[in-house]
Amino acid sequence: MTVTSADAVTDGQGAVLLLDRTRAAVHPELRSTVESLPGSIRRVAMYHFGWEQADGTPAAGQAGKAIRPALVLAAARALGADPAHAVKAAAAVELAHNFTLLHDDIVDEDHTRRHRPTAWTVFGIPDALMAGDAMSALALRLLAEDPHPASGAAAARLAACVIELCAGQQADCAFEQRGPGEVSLDECLAMATAKTGALLGCACALGALYAGAGEEEVAALDAFGREAGLAFQLIDDLIGIWGDPDRTGKPAGADLAARKKSLPVVAALTSGTPAGEELAALYSRTALDAAAVRAAADAVERAGGRDWAQARAADSMGRAVEHLARAVPDLDAAGDLLALAEFVTRRTR
Amino acid sequence: MTVTSADAVTDGQGAVLLLDRTRAAVHPELRSTVESLPGSIRRVAMYHFGWEQADGTPAAGQAGKAIRPALVLAAARALGADPAHAVKAAAAVELAHNFTLLHDDIVDEDHTRRHRPTAWTVFGIPDALMAGDAMSALALRLLAEDPHPASGAAAARLAACVIELCAGQQADCAFEQRGPGEVSLDECLAMATAKTGALLGCACALGALYAGAGEEEVAALDAFGREAGLAFQLIDDLIGIWGDPDRTGKPAGADLAARKKSLPVVAALTSGTPAGEELAALYSRTALDAAAVRAAADAVERAGGRDWAQARAADSMGRAVEHLARAVPDLDAAGDLLALAEFVTRRTR
Repeated sequence: MTVTSADAVTDGQGAVLLLDRTRAAVHPELRSTVESLPGSIRRVAMYHFGWEQADGTPAAGQAGKAIRPALVLAAARALGADPAHAVKAAAAVELAHNFTLLHDDIVDEDHTRRHRPTAWTVFGIPDALMAGDAMSALALRLLAEDPHPASGAAAARLAACVIELCAGQQADCAFEQRGPGEVSLDECLAMATAKTGALLGCACALGALYAGAGEEEVAALDAFGREAGLAFQLIDDLIGIWGDPDRTGKPAGADLAARKKSLPVVAALTSGTPAGEELAALYSRTALDAAAVRAAADAVERAGGRDWAQARAADSMGRAVEHLARAVPDLDAAGDLLALAEFVTRRTR
Repeated sequence: MTVTSADAVTDGQGAVLLLDRTRAAVHPELRSTVESLPGSIRRVAMYHFGWEQADGTPAAGQAGKAIRPALVLAAARALGADPAHAVKAAAAVELAHNFTLLHDDIVDEDHTRRHRPTAWTVFGIPDALMAGDAMSALALRLLAEDPHPASGAAAARLAACVIELCAGQQADCAFEQRGPGEVSLDECLAMATAKTGALLGCACALGALYAGAGEEEVAALDAFGREAGLAFQLIDDLIGIWGDPDRTGKPAGADLAARKKSLPVVAALTSGTPAGEELAALYSRTALDAAAVRAAADAVERAGGRDWAQARAADSMGRAVEHLARAVPDLDAAGDLLALAEFVTRRTR
């Protein structure tokens, strides 16, 4: 945790190092907690995290980038605590995140996660659903059993966050059922904040709680994480349209082919422009071929959806920094958090 | 809470009164907590509890018998506490129970719950799944936010119980996929203990925790609830075969028609008797008509499955009482708990 903010912000290498160190610090706790799950549920969880093959033999896979645990540890450090004391909180947040992935993959009928078949395609829906349920309870159990004085407040906060994540995912599914133009940009922003921003905010808030921070600091860290999370989602949505298939592992325009109502798409659909109407006409089809996907991407761009999303992401990052500065005036102490926020909004896959 | 154990055990009216009083005491907390859920998730939850119709208009339905909350309050009282202080714990246990119902109905593809269409058939799987997820987190949030000194330990215990419930449901689903004779009676008893006993045990343990009881008393109350829960499941399985359709609302032999590996069935299948082999042959069919269901019920009985289940239920109740007597030697103080245990194992629907 000796990376300076200057290093981090300028080249992104600081964030990569931070994530490496977070995984090294949190992985043992995370893994031993997952290994405490009963029999068949443990097997699904071990597979999902990439630690085992479907047949139970060991796998060397990586359990994810660990952005959320890194935010917990960085927030604790920014507020003067030893991040080592917040390792259980970091593991709990990662468990909660992975619970949502397990259930989202079922609901969204996604077949691939981290370049492997999703758990429900391997073990069936009942096993994947129960493993997700158990992982959610495990996250809260880890906090409830932690003797740290902040653990009770952290458990309450994470539980509230899980409810918000569920509401975000529910809204996302509901939007897919509505016609083009029937989802407002405000609704879409609220959904993205609940589905992505809430847990990044909660991660930062838990780090602050574990540092013994007061209510205002905790709220400021939460707001920082939420705005960074919204920026992250906006960039993710741009990648879902214009990302490089070689880097994303998905075909170009995957989100358009699935007619997802992502933020740039909704911005275009609600733009009142002729290009927005073209996009609505394309989205009214039952399926989009490669040519239609290209036409849709072009329409989003001409309707201003791409520029809007980029500007809105920059705007969110600006607000995130303002929130952070309220709680951590010393930019050097806040360096890790800034590096992580920059990292998630600059990534290209 | 003035019912004496003598009243209760003899005629069951005491338990009915206890349940009525529990609903009156816990319902406001339960309802206001559910109403705190965000938008669409609240709607699914309000429907599930019978408080709203599918279109959101009010319904006068009953939210369930409230056996688990009644156990929380009765356990608190048995150990000398004012049950009013354990109302949040009682509501949390009922939320956790209803979370499992929402998800079990999805996994089991059940269409009817409390004489109404199940939530997933009304709102779709994504909404019902997310509502269950949120309800699980809400249960733990209610405890984590409760200022009562026992709330942290209670949250940890309920989270551990949720994990066990998931393992039980997972095992239940896995057993359905195996052939007749491929599930041992011990496996089946362990599954029923996890799926049904664990939450009844947890309810009693939470009541004890809220009464400030020591570890041994909490463990004894947990063991009491677990054994009573196993007896409850055994009786439930007998009703699933020989229950009166007019009372159960299900066709006679519903569990046999679905070829469920319930406890009396597994006892028969593993009996080594000719009748057990007849049953295995019937269970190897793809579907059982009414005549086959009658033949299967007859085979379970001749193989000794019915007698075994009745004897095992009585045995569990005996053990339950022994556990209870360890923690609450005064039979009068333990009266409500005994009345509830008798009620759940004597009910005919």
